[in-house]
Amino acid sequence: MDSQPLFPTLAPTIEWRDGKLLLLDQTRLPHEIVVEHVADAAAVWRAIHELRVRGAPAIGVAAGYGLCVAMQDARALPIAQFRAELEKRAAWLDTARPTAVNLSWSLRRMTKTARECNAQDAAALYDALVEEAVRIHREDIALCEGIGEHGMPLIAEGNGVLTHCNAGALATTGLGTATAPIYAAHRAGIRFNVFADETRPLLQGARLTAFELQQAGVDVTLIMDGAAASIMSQGLVDIVIVGTDRVAANGDFANKIGTLGLAIAARHYGIPFYVACPSSTLDFHTATGHDIEIEERSETEVTHLAGRRIAPENIKARNPAFDVTPHALVTGFVTERGIVHAPFERSLKRLFAAECNAA
Amino acid sequence: MDSQPLFPTLAPTIEWRDGKLLLLDQTRLPHEIVVEHVADAAAVWRAIHELRVRGAPAIGVAAGYGLCVAMQDARALPIAQFRAELEKRAAWLDTARPTAVNLSWSLRRMTKTARECNAQDAAALYDALVEEAVRIHREDIALCEGIGEHGMPLIAEGNGVLTHCNAGALATTGLGTATAPIYAAHRAGIRFNVFADETRPLLQGARLTAFELQQAGVDVTLIMDGAAASIMSQGLVDIVIVGTDRVAANGDFANKIGTLGLAIAARHYGIPFYVACPSSTLDFHTATGHDIEIEERSETEVTHLAGRRIAPENIKARNPAFDVTPHALVTGFVTERGIVHAPFERSLKRLFAAECNAA
Repeated sequence: MDSQPLFPTLAPTIEWRDGKLLLLDQTRLPHEIVVEHVADAAAVWRAIHELRVRGAPAIGVAAGYGLCVAMQDARALPIAQFRAELEKRAAWLDTARPTAVNLSWSLRRMTKTARECNAQDAAALYDALVEEAVRIHREDIALCEGIGEHGMPLIAEGNGVLTHCNAGALATTGLGTATAPIYAAHRAGIRFNVFADETRPLLQGARLTAFELQQAGVDVTLIMDGAAASIMSQGLVDIVIVGTDRVAANGDFANKIGTLGLAIAARHYGIPFYVACPSSTLDFHTATGHDIEIEERSETEVTHLAGRRIAPENIKARNPAFDVTPHALVTGFVTERGIVHAPFERSLKRLFAAECNAA
Repeated sequence: MDSQPLFPTLAPTIEWRDGKLLLLDQTRLPHEIVVEHVADAAAVWRAIHELRVRGAPAIGVAAGYGLCVAMQDARALPIAQFRAELEKRAAWLDTARPTAVNLSWSLRRMTKTARECNAQDAAALYDALVEEAVRIHREDIALCEGIGEHGMPLIAEGNGVLTHCNAGALATTGLGTATAPIYAAHRAGIRFNVFADETRPLLQGARLTAFELQQAGVDVTLIMDGAAASIMSQGLVDIVIVGTDRVAANGDFANKIGTLGLAIAARHYGIPFYVACPSSTLDFHTATGHDIEIEERSETEVTHLAGRRIAPENIKARNPAFDVTPHALVTGFVTERGIVHAPFERSLKRLFAAECNAA
């Protein structure tokens, strides 16, 4: 499937063209724009494992197409053998990033499609798989569009918008999540400017968000994480929009470390604080933020930068990858079905009744 | 003058030994511990200019001794010629860092001492200059001790203390300012732990504060600036102590960028927030924080790290070096004469009446 690139000078995050899977290598951004042709199962596994494609929604899309790529050399096999290989290869691809929910979800959906398909030969079954992968891709684009559509009215002419980390187009195959209202407003000709936190330790704000907004022609200014409160105090921020990795049933949510401090500062200055939230990140199994386990990542992300040591030898460091922001600091969740306001416990369940009942 | 090093394996920031000026080269910390023998006027100028000695109090002390070093080859001159050279060389040393207040202050004090001294020859006048430099050094140590003494009772057994940037021993010749209560409590056998913010962009927290506390045997943990609110939310911080570059008459204060966000988060969690403040940073000429001009430094400090580009080419960046925290967020100022509480406008003037009247 061809998707319209947001960025005239940049390739789409993921492209399916003439049966070929093309990935924009995110590990080399922003210094190099390299599109990788991922040509076999091993290459798909490596691209996901080595974070050349990253962001939960983008990984889901890559996994769908990736399974198709992995099966291309099996199209001449008898269909029973093709089916057996499909299950085997899907299970193997699923090991590329053990904790990425969207990877498993996408591969399960692909194998389910195969099981329910009554194709007569492997080639026909392969075609059905490609159709399903395209569907996953289309849904991701539509989900981003939905968030953009509902979030766009939040951004007014002349506004300052602050965001953190990369919940951007590069993490999806569409407008992104936190960036969707930004791109939608930009597309609509509204003039505003964005402050992108650099987002230590891995600098996704500097490397990815600042980069993709710049490529799309959005007026973006990079700031250090510690400068956000000062920028707010100067009246330069009218709205904060961030992404999320998981939203608990009561509206507490986890996101990249640094989000909590932003939410507290936004509240201090009376600045609306919105969370862009595709329904896939709602977790009705988790009652509150206290139940969200926070991943503590390697100390070397703090003590080193771009491979260089920046802290003393043998220093102790803490490196929580995420923090939990209590729902009381959230103005609203921008979902693909609309904006949800407090009390979140009730309003999230009302808008996503089906998902809640399934949970 | 020999001062007892705080850190058994580390040289003192500044040492005067047998007529020699020895400086710990701070640009090479924490990777290398290099003590430079600063042997002539040009070397003194370069050491200050190139930030090998940094921190306002330490620069003041280095300038006093530095002027002595600069005059060593003039001791055989007739006294009138020595006096003329002294004025000339002091004026030249003052150009090493045009904006460092303590540099000018220290050099003015040295030349005033010379003018008021009725020595009969150059050698005797030189000795008087050394005595004055030692006095400046002793006063700096005493000032840090005073802050340590008054601030120590704020730190209780088992506490978590959070600090930002380096208002440490390395910025002074004694216990530092924000670190003085920490070292005093450590010396008194109180067990507690410190979180040091890394302090982007120049990483003084990681490179200097984490390093000096580690060397002194204080239990220190390095965190990213964005992690502070999360660490607070977990109940791990009992007190925040930061330094300051300037305190306005009403208690608003400027400090390294990131301080404001910390103060807001501390208030949100009900954590006491103290500012270590030698009387030399009180500025009774400045009514409120609105009157403090904030230096905007080079964008490359944000876009680059350790000489490497970490952000896209041609990206816009903002790099305010300081932020202003309103007095309403301050629990107290820890000065060499005691702790000052709100209302600061009145209490600062009361404790520092002489300085206020001189202003």
